[in-house]
Amino acid sequence: MRAVDLIRRKRDGHALDPADIRRFVAGVVDGSWPDYQIAALLMAIVLRGMTAAEAAALTEAMVQSGTRLDLSRFGRAVVDKHSTGGVGDKVSLVLAPLAAACGVVVPMMSGRGLGHTGGTLDKLESIPGFRTRLDPDEIHRTLDRIGCVMIGQTDEVAPADRRLYALRDVTATVESVPLIASSILSKKIAEGIAGLVLDVKVGSGAFMPDDESARELAQALLDIARLHAMRCEAVLSSMHTPLGRAVGNAVEVIEAIETLKGRGPADTTALCLDLTARMLVLAGVADDGPRALERAQVALERGDGLERFRQIIEAQGGDPLVVDDYGRLPAAPHQRTVEASASGWVTIDAGAVGHAAVVLGAGRDRADQAVDPSAGIEILLTEGSEVRAGEAVLIVSGADPGRVDAAHAALQRAVTVGDAPPPRRPLIRQVLAGVSA
Amino acid sequence: MRAVDLIRRKRDGHALDPADIRRFVAGVVDGSWPDYQIAALLMAIVLRGMTAAEAAALTEAMVQSGTRLDLSRFGRAVVDKHSTGGVGDKVSLVLAPLAAACGVVVPMMSGRGLGHTGGTLDKLESIPGFRTRLDPDEIHRTLDRIGCVMIGQTDEVAPADRRLYALRDVTATVESVPLIASSILSKKIAEGIAGLVLDVKVGSGAFMPDDESARELAQALLDIARLHAMRCEAVLSSMHTPLGRAVGNAVEVIEAIETLKGRGPADTTALCLDLTARMLVLAGVADDGPRALERAQVALERGDGLERFRQIIEAQGGDPLVVDDYGRLPAAPHQRTVEASASGWVTIDAGAVGHAAVVLGAGRDRADQAVDPSAGIEILLTEGSEVRAGEAVLIVSGADPGRVDAAHAALQRAVTVGDAPPPRRPLIRQVLAGVSA
Repeated sequence: MRAVDLIRRKRDGHALDPADIRRFVAGVVDGSWPDYQIAALLMAIVLRGMTAAEAAALTEAMVQSGTRLDLSRFGRAVVDKHSTGGVGDKVSLVLAPLAAACGVVVPMMSGRGLGHTGGTLDKLESIPGFRTRLDPDEIHRTLDRIGCVMIGQTDEVAPADRRLYALRDVTATVESVPLIASSILSKKIAEGIAGLVLDVKVGSGAFMPDDESARELAQALLDIARLHAMRCEAVLSSMHTPLGRAVGNAVEVIEAIETLKGRGPADTTALCLDLTARMLVLAGVADDGPRALERAQVALERGDGLERFRQIIEAQGGDPLVVDDYGRLPAAPHQRTVEASASGWVTIDAGAVGHAAVVLGAGRDRADQAVDPSAGIEILLTEGSEVRAGEAVLIVSGADPGRVDAAHAALQRAVTVGDAPPPRRPLIRQVLAGVSA
Repeated sequence: MRAVDLIRRKRDGHALDPADIRRFVAGVVDGSWPDYQIAALLMAIVLRGMTAAEAAALTEAMVQSGTRLDLSRFGRAVVDKHSTGGVGDKVSLVLAPLAAACGVVVPMMSGRGLGHTGGTLDKLESIPGFRTRLDPDEIHRTLDRIGCVMIGQTDEVAPADRRLYALRDVTATVESVPLIASSILSKKIAEGIAGLVLDVKVGSGAFMPDDESARELAQALLDIARLHAMRCEAVLSSMHTPLGRAVGNAVEVIEAIETLKGRGPADTTALCLDLTARMLVLAGVADDGPRALERAQVALERGDGLERFRQIIEAQGGDPLVVDDYGRLPAAPHQRTVEASASGWVTIDAGAVGHAAVVLGAGRDRADQAVDPSAGIEILLTEGSEVRAGEAVLIVSGADPGRVDAAHAALQRAVTVGDAPPPRRPLIRQVLAGVSA
């Protein structure tokens, strides 16, 4: 089938068959499909949708477009977590070493921040010397020795996804459940994992604004995982207000280390333990949820997770002393305080904070921008706290005073003070199970 | 608004405002919009549609993207006709000289054949020496002297449309009523005309397969014309079987000349007279339909149209002797006959004949292909004729024997013989009026 005929089929609402999808992905990788034909098909997919079978075929074709880690020697112990992205979401930094300390093998490939959501790679790279690109030998050696790597997507993994993602970003074709789901899972399947815990964020600071759309994405991910016989569980977690008390890069590394020391904010700690426990069950390391949670808690309390994080930093070229001396991380010379405009109860909007973090330079809105590793927003009073007018709610810090001022202005819209406590929202809104372990 | 935000608006079903549409068209012309963003927006337009106001703004912006003929010295007498394309549609070759002979000024810009529909330029260029590219001075001089030019779209006319059309052809975004309508009318408005007769073809040999879709296109064209204060009338004419008895290039020139000599097939003659009469009314040359028709008939019978065609050929560098000596036109050395497979009544499918004409080389399916001017299909027995098994129905001719064989095979599917006469279908199915003259 010619490219134009394949585009026409999708435009007219028909399902593409697996052979057509493979031909399309091959054309994306070998360059025989020009950008404009890819863009037209992507828009047709956004507006016409894809069946679960089409999304699974697209995922499979993207996996096949590149190389796949062979971690079969570890059996079902190889499990990862993926978050759809949020504000202050430092869970991976805590969960990966903690799960590894409990016996899970975690070959975690992460991305960079884009738009209002932060990225694990940016956070890790605020640690002096930390390398997020490892060659295949290093990956295997590190997994054998420590049970965890925390790296970026290599050029060899799902190259089709990379070209598609770059085009989607500039053609308003990001917002498509089957395209999002196949992009996520093609990279995860290429990691060679046997199980996956999905953290699907819901709220103003997330990609999916409400439970319904988040459930739709979670179900699409579970459907694809099922068709690939990957054990999978999806947690819908709240992202209407930032997670924890720090938003940025170095500041989130500090909060993650504090959490691994048992001193983290309640919400960050609870979510990290919950998701780690789910990984332990999927990996067969624990028999059921309660036992898995207990095991994760013990590992946290004994400092096993912290010790593992230190080993990971050292293995990947970073300065392991940051774990004990936060002064070795980049510090921001400029600071401003955001005060409450009235007395009452504080609400902090995650989306607005995420936007301010981009203004500040802690995040980026174009993939080719650099981030300021020292820049961050500290939350002194979290959502639901009672405040007096003029009391400090946030501290915004960064290397560039102009950006700090601009972020300070943007943060005025993020903080509102009401005359009654805001409704309490559960952190974990729903859990959807996939293929059972 | 950034390109990606503009695409997003249309993707989400919003109407674009005129300023955004102008920005888009400017980006198409100056190259600041890359192909992939144009393609994504085109697909969003195909699937989300455009309001009449959006289509009018797109048309206006495309007109403004290039130059416009200034024919205001002729007042309202400047009127053209446009056909949405059919099989055997040589109406322009008859109507333009006939209308000019009656006092209408006809600055006709036509296109080439693409797909199963033929193109006026290809037909004219089968006349030895005929030039379809004239410089602006020649256009004005010829219009002053003869009242008619028959030329191709110049590079200066609606350059945005040219880039858009090339992309639409390869991204399955041709089939959109607002895109088709704005493409047609931007070129016609750039001709500097005061009135336009639209021949919207309906049937297997046309772009629009049924009355409903043809009416939708006609109405979109009338709406845009109204917003540009252009007098306009749309005729829905049947294209389920080819028009007349010749399909090709030189063979259609011959049929057009025969028609101008009063010896044309009944359907060709009737449609040419009807559409010419409508032009006379729009141009103010005749007061009403019946008087206009009478005037066109008289001009035909007196040979005024034929004489004018001879002048046009001469003015545009062609050999005017072809009018009297068809032997001066390219002749096809190879011929085959298509016979009736049974006895009964003949049906000839326009779409299948148009497809066979492409196979034969009389048409093309890619814009960069050349055509064989001598190649053609002659219809000995038109639809509804009674035949005996084995009787010749069509003659297919061309310069390349392989192509003649292939077209001969394709034509087997075009001719069917039934055991009852096919239903008679009126040639003119409906007339839609626009702004009244």
